[in-house]
Formats: sequence, C-alpha cells, structure tokens
Amino acid sequence: VITSTANSRIKSVRELHRGKVRRLQGRTLIEGHAVFAEFLAAGFRPVTVLCEPHDTATIDACHRSNIGFTLVTRDVLASASDTRAPQGPVAVIEIPQLSRLRLHNTLVLVDIQDPGNVGTMIRTSAAFGWDVAYTAATAEPWAPKTVRSAAGSHTRVGLILLTDPLEELSETGLHIVASVIAGGSPPSRSHDAVALLVGSEAHGLDREMVERADTTMTIPMPGGTESLNAAISAAIALFALT
Amino acid sequence: VITSTANSRIKSVRELHRGKVRRLQGRTLIEGHAVFAEFLAAGFRPVTVLCEPHDTATIDACHRSNIGFTLVTRDVLASASDTRAPQGPVAVIEIPQLSRLRLHNTLVLVDIQDPGNVGTMIRTSAAFGWDVAYTAATAEPWAPKTVRSAAGSHTRVGLILLTDPLEELSETGLHIVASVIAGGSPPSRSHDAVALLVGSEAHGLDREMVERADTTMTIPMPGGTESLNAAISAAIALFALT
Repeated sequence: VITSTANSRIKSVRELHRGKVRRLQGRTLIEGHAVFAEFLAAGFRPVTVLCEPHDTATIDACHRSNIGFTLVTRDVLASASDTRAPQGPVAVIEIPQLSRLRLHNTLVLVDIQDPGNVGTMIRTSAAFGWDVAYTAATAEPWAPKTVRSAAGSHTRVGLILLTDPLEELSETGLHIVASVIAGGSPPSRSHDAVALLVGSEAHGLDREMVERADTTMTIPMPGGTESLNAAISAAIALFALT
Repeated sequence: VITSTANSRIKSVRELHRGKVRRLQGRTLIEGHAVFAEFLAAGFRPVTVLCEPHDTATIDACHRSNIGFTLVTRDVLASASDTRAPQGPVAVIEIPQLSRLRLHNTLVLVDIQDPGNVGTMIRTSAAFGWDVAYTAATAEPWAPKTVRSAAGSHTRVGLILLTDPLEELSETGLHIVASVIAGGSPPSRSHDAVALLVGSEAHGLDREMVERADTTMTIPMPGGTESLNAAISAAIALFALT
C-alpha cells in the first residue's frame, strides 16, 4: 500500500492534471466507480489504477478484466484525484485518437469555453448517437473534470480534434448546419448526415463559419428571451435533427 | 463612499447569502450589469444598490429609474458579492410572491438538487414561455447563485412554491405529464396547458407522482445511453411540448 503522496508513481499520475502533460503523453485521468466501469465495459485497459484497500468493487473489477492495480491510502488517492473526496478509483487511460470526421451525424464544438458545457454536450451526443468534433480553442474534452461531467459518455462517441475546421468539414459529404441566435430556420429532421456547428457561449459562430454552412438553424423561443445556455441549445437541436 | 466591510448596511446585505435570512426577510441578492438591467426593465425596484464610484452605467441606470444607490469600495463590493471579482452592482430585491398555479404551461421541479440545474431550467422556461413551480426540497430558485445562472430570466417566469404538490396540482385543470427514464411516450405537442413534472437528478420522480400523472413521457435516446442531464432532459421536453 502506497502511503506517501511523494511516491514517484503518484507524482506522475498527479501530473496529468496539467493539460500540457496530457497532450504530451496522450493520457488522461478518469475517476469514480460508474465512470471506471463504463470505460472497462467499453474495452479500455487503464495504464494505472489507484484504489483503497477496502474498495472491493474496484479490486474485483480489475481481477475480472485482468488489469493491475495499486493500493493507496485515502490521502494518496485524494492527492491524485480531481475532487476533494474521491469516490472509487482514480485511473490513467490512453486518450483514443480519432483523426477524421465520418459521414455520420456530428456535433461540432467551435470554441466552446466552459468544460461543464463540453461534458454535457458529449453526454447528450452519446444519448442521440452523434459523434463530436471540436476546435483547438474548445475546452479540452479529455480534461478530468469534463470526463466526470459527461458521466462515462466519452466511451460512446467518436471525439475528433479539427485542426483546420473549414477545410476538414468541406472534405466530408456532411450537410452543414450552423446554429445562430436569430434568423435561421427552425430545426427539422434531415435525410443526410449532419454536421451541426455550435459557437462559443459569448460570441456564437464566426461569420465565415456561418457562410460556409449549407443552412442556418435557430430554435424558436416563444417566450421572447434572447438566448439559451449553449448546452441546452445544442441538445434541443440534436433532438430535433435526429 | 463606504470603505469598511464592517459597516452595518453592508453586513445586512451580506446576511442575505444565508438561505434562512432570505426566507425570513423575503429578499435576495442580484448582481452584475446584465441581470440588474433585466430586473429594472421588469419593474423591480431594488431596496439597496451597491456599486463602485466609477460604475457610471449603474449610477446612470439608478438616476433614470429614480432609485437610490450606495457607493462602496471594490473590497466592500466583493464582500457583499457571491463572486470573487464582481462585475457591476450588487443589489437587494424583494422576492415576488406568487401563490397559485395558473392554467398555463408549467415546469414542475420536484426535489431538483443542483442550483445550476434549477437556474438553467428557469432560463429555458423563460425562453419557451412556461411558468416554473417547485417543491420545498428543490434547491432554492432565488438563491444568488441560481439567479446568476439564469441570466435574468427570473423576471420572465411565474415562480410558484408548492407546499402540497399533489393537492395543488389536482386542483388545476392542467394536463399532468410525468417525465420518466423509460417506458413513457415520446414527447408530443399538447392542446391543453401542461404541468410537466421532472424529478431529482439521482432518483427521478416518486411512484406516487408518476401514478398521479395523466401521462408519462420519455425522451427517445437512440444512442443507447441511460440518461441525460436533468436540465437537458427538461429542455428537450419543453421544446417538444411547446
């Protein structure tokens, strides 16, 4: 049982709280019983699993999947965790690399700033069977906090980083729909696979993105307010387009 | 200009961060330029307005609406605020009292725990022109954090506390729809005014609530995941029922 937070293996786990280290190593942290179980069920094989000696649920799961684990004290677990009072294991996984958009309904996150919104959008996409693509300026989808807020849904969606969004979108056969705050058509089901572009919470989509789209879409708001939360707006669009 | 956080007027503003004080006094805090402007536009007359001497936007707005204001230093403003770095004024308002459900589309929050979810649900209800009712065990809709997350939408919805939900709902002519995780009908537009019941994030609705409903509703999730975030699920239902 590791009892020291200064242990080198624990230190290297803790380093994954830094985005730069995650990008360099291509690894991230997942935590909690439910999320851990989702990842195992989806075939992920964690590189490292930290858990407490009395956490028989995690130990049994590791035995069944023939995965090694490291026993640690509560303090050591908390030092590796993203939360103050971790429930269940903290594990290191390899971030899966998907390089290209598929001809499949895809939610495109354009510079979404809030990690909670990104997590919720991934969870909603999983519920409706969509892939998720994201720009480099979007809050990192594989950050531990975002993985947590998506409740295990990362295993169920294709997650694609777009380095040149306009170019990469134009190479697909996807029907491109831009979500705009006013003036677009109400959402309606499409026969073709769709790329739905949603812009940042503060500024929406750039004009270039909107001009590039095949159509623009606006959710009718009979109550007369100006806007919906970004994750809410995306969810209604996914529901209506699916 | 008040320079001391120990000033008695500032202390009494700060006390409104406690739920018990808000309930006793029937007052709450609102903050930020956009939210403050929404409340003024809706006819609210704040009891107290704190702002910095250089905050000409707030000072001008108070002059135009003939409302008194108190100038304070940045430290004093921060001590009264719910955020570390307040942007714009902090103001005290009287919480409007609505006692009865109307024959009007109403989202019924049954024991929703997360203040952010409550705020988002109020914002979404405002966008679709619904009222919002809530049980006593729901996170307080008028808490400063919740008012902030709803971005000024509190002024646009009727907000009704239900002390005896089953009894009060049965007295209305509302068509009662219970949102359930599985087995309900897909959402569809209703000719009658609807009361849509949504249950707590962890447990959903009690069996008694579901049995009391005229119909049950489940959002189809072709992606095969188990659940959506509570605020997302409510938003899709509101969109589909409106």
